[in-house]
Amino acid sequence: MSISPLLKQLIDALCCLPGVGQKSAQRMAFQLLERGREKGNHLAKSLESAMQNIKHCKTCRNYSEVEICSLCQSPKRDPSSLCIVESPADITAVEQMGTYRGLYFVLMGHLSPLDGIGPDDIGIKQLLPLIKTREVTEVIIATNPTVEGEATAHYIFETLKDTNIKITRIAHGVPLGGELEYIDSGTLAHAFAGRELI
Amino acid sequence: MSISPLLKQLIDALCCLPGVGQKSAQRMAFQLLERGREKGNHLAKSLESAMQNIKHCKTCRNYSEVEICSLCQSPKRDPSSLCIVESPADITAVEQMGTYRGLYFVLMGHLSPLDGIGPDDIGIKQLLPLIKTREVTEVIIATNPTVEGEATAHYIFETLKDTNIKITRIAHGVPLGGELEYIDSGTLAHAFAGRELI
Repeated sequence: MSISPLLKQLIDALCCLPGVGQKSAQRMAFQLLERGREKGNHLAKSLESAMQNIKHCKTCRNYSEVEICSLCQSPKRDPSSLCIVESPADITAVEQMGTYRGLYFVLMGHLSPLDGIGPDDIGIKQLLPLIKTREVTEVIIATNPTVEGEATAHYIFETLKDTNIKITRIAHGVPLGGELEYIDSGTLAHAFAGRELI
Repeated sequence: MSISPLLKQLIDALCCLPGVGQKSAQRMAFQLLERGREKGNHLAKSLESAMQNIKHCKTCRNYSEVEICSLCQSPKRDPSSLCIVESPADITAVEQMGTYRGLYFVLMGHLSPLDGIGPDDIGIKQLLPLIKTREVTEVIIATNPTVEGEATAHYIFETLKDTNIKITRIAHGVPLGGELEYIDSGTLAHAFAGRELI
């Protein structure tokens, strides 16, 4: 009653964003109406075109509005190295690191039999021909160090172990700036098991 | 490079929302693309229509997509009582209280000479004829208890004091559930000054 129906609809729609509840949505709506109508319109257009045009790259399964994404098409990247990640956000993280020059393959999830997510859903069928056509020499498995991520990494290793490819897993241990005192014992065990000669 | 241009544009556009930085915007964009394309489209449409159609009610200055908002048109509300608030969000707060049955007037801000916001910007010119035509008998000033809110309340009081209207200000004191130990001294001084016979 006290609120206009369109405004109510906008507030409810904003609640679909992760981490946004009724109160934050209300604040967002009021701020857009008061100080940012142009920004609001711009957001609406960006949302619409992103939702309609962003598909998956046919080669690496990353988000892309073209058939083959710019990373896969880039002549500057080294096609002999392939990094397997769970999600497009992981690519952003690895790219921010700035030292990896190879290509990627995005699983768009991880194996999770309880949720009905099997090898076909994470694109394993697509992975094998990709490795052959690109003449990949090293596959870096960078799934998350969670139970599902580890299971997925193991599955990919089992699938690829008969090929002649070097299969590696990113190191798990104490993060830089971390303090031993506050590190969980699982991580610490990994760090000890993976110790290296100085 | 690693991120599609449309996705980049969407992430930047989401950053215009209050409390949303680059990382949250990225999370929102990925979540919408992965699990909520329909919700994303719905949000885009709601945003667009809200930005284009929501104007201010000609009577109370609250947000409304019609000339006179539903509150002002409602026959169930008591037109003899007028509550003056700073923003539409304040109306929502007062309505949630559930006991006020009068009407509202929204200043859409507060007096702030340093920012160039004078009486005309907060609709004081509109307020006087409104009070006369509606035969208002009580004006409740519910601006925020900040320096600017108090100054605005004082200005409205000075403007209306020569009329025959009862002018009141909402009480300021210790909030329910608050503990004296943790209340700032300004609020406590207000609570003592405004003490009432039991």
